[in-house]
Amino acid sequence: MQQRILDPRLRERLMTAEQAAELIQPGMTVAMSGFTGAGYPKAVPQALAARMEQASGEGHPFRIKVLTGASTAPELDGALARVEGMELRLPYQSDPNVRERINAGTLNYIDIHLSHVAQHTWFGFFGDIDVAVIEVAGIREDGRLVPSSSVGNNKTWLDQADKVIIEVNRWQPAALDGMHDIYYGTALPPHRQPIPLTAPDDRIGEPYLKVDPAKIIAVVETDAPDRNSAFSPPDEASQQIAGHLLDFLDHEIKRGRLTDKLLPLQSGVGNIANAVLAGLSQGGYKGLAAYTEVIQDGMLELLKNGTLRMASATSFSLSPAGIEEFNANVDFYSKRILLRPQEISNHPEIIRRLGCIAMNGMIEADIYGNVNSTHIAGSRIMNGIGGSGDFTRNGYLSVFLSPSTAKGGKISGIVPMASHVDHTEHDTMVIVTEQGLADLRGLAPKQRARLIIERCAHPDYKPMLQDYFDRASRESYGKHTPHLLDEALSWHRRFVETGTMRPG
Amino acid sequence: MQQRILDPRLRERLMTAEQAAELIQPGMTVAMSGFTGAGYPKAVPQALAARMEQASGEGHPFRIKVLTGASTAPELDGALARVEGMELRLPYQSDPNVRERINAGTLNYIDIHLSHVAQHTWFGFFGDIDVAVIEVAGIREDGRLVPSSSVGNNKTWLDQADKVIIEVNRWQPAALDGMHDIYYGTALPPHRQPIPLTAPDDRIGEPYLKVDPAKIIAVVETDAPDRNSAFSPPDEASQQIAGHLLDFLDHEIKRGRLTDKLLPLQSGVGNIANAVLAGLSQGGYKGLAAYTEVIQDGMLELLKNGTLRMASATSFSLSPAGIEEFNANVDFYSKRILLRPQEISNHPEIIRRLGCIAMNGMIEADIYGNVNSTHIAGSRIMNGIGGSGDFTRNGYLSVFLSPSTAKGGKISGIVPMASHVDHTEHDTMVIVTEQGLADLRGLAPKQRARLIIERCAHPDYKPMLQDYFDRASRESYGKHTPHLLDEALSWHRRFVETGTMRPG
Repeated sequence: MQQRILDPRLRERLMTAEQAAELIQPGMTVAMSGFTGAGYPKAVPQALAARMEQASGEGHPFRIKVLTGASTAPELDGALARVEGMELRLPYQSDPNVRERINAGTLNYIDIHLSHVAQHTWFGFFGDIDVAVIEVAGIREDGRLVPSSSVGNNKTWLDQADKVIIEVNRWQPAALDGMHDIYYGTALPPHRQPIPLTAPDDRIGEPYLKVDPAKIIAVVETDAPDRNSAFSPPDEASQQIAGHLLDFLDHEIKRGRLTDKLLPLQSGVGNIANAVLAGLSQGGYKGLAAYTEVIQDGMLELLKNGTLRMASATSFSLSPAGIEEFNANVDFYSKRILLRPQEISNHPEIIRRLGCIAMNGMIEADIYGNVNSTHIAGSRIMNGIGGSGDFTRNGYLSVFLSPSTAKGGKISGIVPMASHVDHTEHDTMVIVTEQGLADLRGLAPKQRARLIIERCAHPDYKPMLQDYFDRASRESYGKHTPHLLDEALSWHRRFVETGTMRPG
Repeated sequence: MQQRILDPRLRERLMTAEQAAELIQPGMTVAMSGFTGAGYPKAVPQALAARMEQASGEGHPFRIKVLTGASTAPELDGALARVEGMELRLPYQSDPNVRERINAGTLNYIDIHLSHVAQHTWFGFFGDIDVAVIEVAGIREDGRLVPSSSVGNNKTWLDQADKVIIEVNRWQPAALDGMHDIYYGTALPPHRQPIPLTAPDDRIGEPYLKVDPAKIIAVVETDAPDRNSAFSPPDEASQQIAGHLLDFLDHEIKRGRLTDKLLPLQSGVGNIANAVLAGLSQGGYKGLAAYTEVIQDGMLELLKNGTLRMASATSFSLSPAGIEEFNANVDFYSKRILLRPQEISNHPEIIRRLGCIAMNGMIEADIYGNVNSTHIAGSRIMNGIGGSGDFTRNGYLSVFLSPSTAKGGKISGIVPMASHVDHTEHDTMVIVTEQGLADLRGLAPKQRARLIIERCAHPDYKPMLQDYFDRASRESYGKHTPHLLDEALSWHRRFVETGTMRPG
């Protein structure tokens, strides 16, 4: 088996996960690697959870503050949540155990634009980082680190933490070596310079992470897979949503607003995103680029058949089949994929310069185009805003895609008033459901409402929305954005009380 | 009197405002100069309004779509609104006649981030621009234009309009010549390059606007002052708000997060902004810089006494006394003031690079830090989002300042749920009222609520807010962002129904 720890100084700090976990104390702020179930530490968090459980059983609550890149996996978020081991979590999560505690009111969670996390750490807004726990794919002779399947905030955690624990995961493909582009040109204001990236393909940094070896207090070896969500083929609604979006892109090309190379694609993860990608491939597009957060199985296929010429991201989150495909064709893929720190993958400066086409899911949109990405019924967190704000505000186009209903029709994705707003009316250009697409560009609020109701609402809810809008247009206090304040949130109230937004 | 039109070709196109107004036809999209009551055309819009009134009297409604930089003045917005001459207005307004029609539902208004307007025009999102009507301070021998007291979107309007009408206003100080920095390095994606501005002082463009002389269909001479709002000394509440903010800045310096040079200041206009500026001067700050939208009287004083070493903006909006001061010390001020296109003054890339301290007013904030900048009771537009989103999302610090009550105490500036959201919980760092300051950085929603209620709410409303929050924390569907859906907007409903948010 190939040695992954080539720096002899760091081989001396090898220890077990249990020993490493002993170096973390209650109340500490601990920054960990991990982005969308890729590249998170696999062993130390579980050992730490065991320690926490024991301490707690002995009457000594043991909780820490946990910062990551984005979502992780059961071995990190799940393990720490189950033993009530976190007092604060940021900047994003998607774990059922974490979510349950946040919504029970027992775990503080800060939901942050992913591009803001690194700079707010540097600014000192989150206080000191006591320990970083970072998974890497290897350690070179000179102590530089071969990043793992995600970069996330690792550069910042390694720079800013007082102490560092490294997990070296030999399960990660050796071929990751060279696929990363770590930009070390950042600075604090007033010393910032332009970021010299003008195309998704540009390399502006170096392939390795740097860390002061004196800060490394432990090195732990692991051999464990990433979360590996399996890839499921798009369902019918997703294919319809993708179809509407592809028709729209064709129309934009015909009008001369886009070329057939489009502009760099950003896409959220999941069924609808996969359907859009598959549709681009079937639609005959060639030579596109992705400037996005996560590379999933669907993108490998598009790279292989030439739909995509390259993809830039911060996380490489594949299914077991995807990993197999990658390992079997390493030379091909490693030339076409770049992984960057999330402060660069999500940087407003770059997203606006490149003119990304931002495509993200949502929980609900209201008839004026305000979008809720995070809260069920205004109070219950789902996951978080993630990078959707970074791309939506700064992209060339901002598109939100969602089925028109959820929970078997009990929830409408189009509501009179969003119960929480993550993306404002000023930021939303296009809304797509399986019913159709509403192009909101150049429209005033009432024009938007008519179009969203007509094109995007489910037939079961359309008459109710039209009725609300008609009455609001007559009776509202102001008629710029008509609302009936006693009814605006009544659909959500009905859902909370009866389990459905449909009237009884 | 000095000749302001030096290009003989353009002197041949001199005509009256009435003749020029004849060149504008019903249904046209007309882009005009003007930003915060400075640099808007003074004569053609009034002549056009007279034409519209006549046409309308003869049974021929005459309406156009009007795009500007930001707010204008009675001679433009007021005149066109009074004759029902606009079918669409964007991207910002503050005129009582315009506001009345928007809120009556008879005038479509699109409220847009000011940094987005130029690029969305280039992208084709607003359709073709038929005519531009642009005020300038003069025309040079070679046909280049000396910009007026605001730049706004003029570069874009001159480039994108099919035809151009120029108003040459000899009232504008001749000394404006040379104070502008018009950047011609913009491009459409995928051809964009980094904007080479790394300090507020940097000149990256040229002092003059360019236009194809063949497009100029009329030149009109005027001699009329800008709107010239008088400067009123800060009231007590504004001084208290400023005091809290200055204490906070001192604290940030002591903690080492800021130096005594701070970072480039952006500040909204009005009483509170003036009080903050005055406070910086009294606080002994020296050599600061402003990177903002509007230069008002208060900034001249700060330039004069060395508090500010320079100021960059897109509009120069002075009172009559301010104009007098400027004209009496032209050599001093013209070296220290730069006026840029609003796509540069408000550019996310630049604002994030410079790390601006963003200070803006608001209508209301909710207990979780969501901010409403635009709508009274969720439906009635006040002005618009303006540049507040550009600076808030991208600045080093985002601060919202407001008295804790309005309308003699009948409206609370802190409410259970914002009735409209322009700045989300993800974007708001600091909220200040005359009661105190809430620093929300690094806090989860419930922690924010406790702090905002404690520090910022008016004593008359504090117990009601605390009661709402306590009950919501027990009874809410989710306890991440606790809300009672049947009460969340009840304060606004009460205000609409009874004229006050206080319970009867």
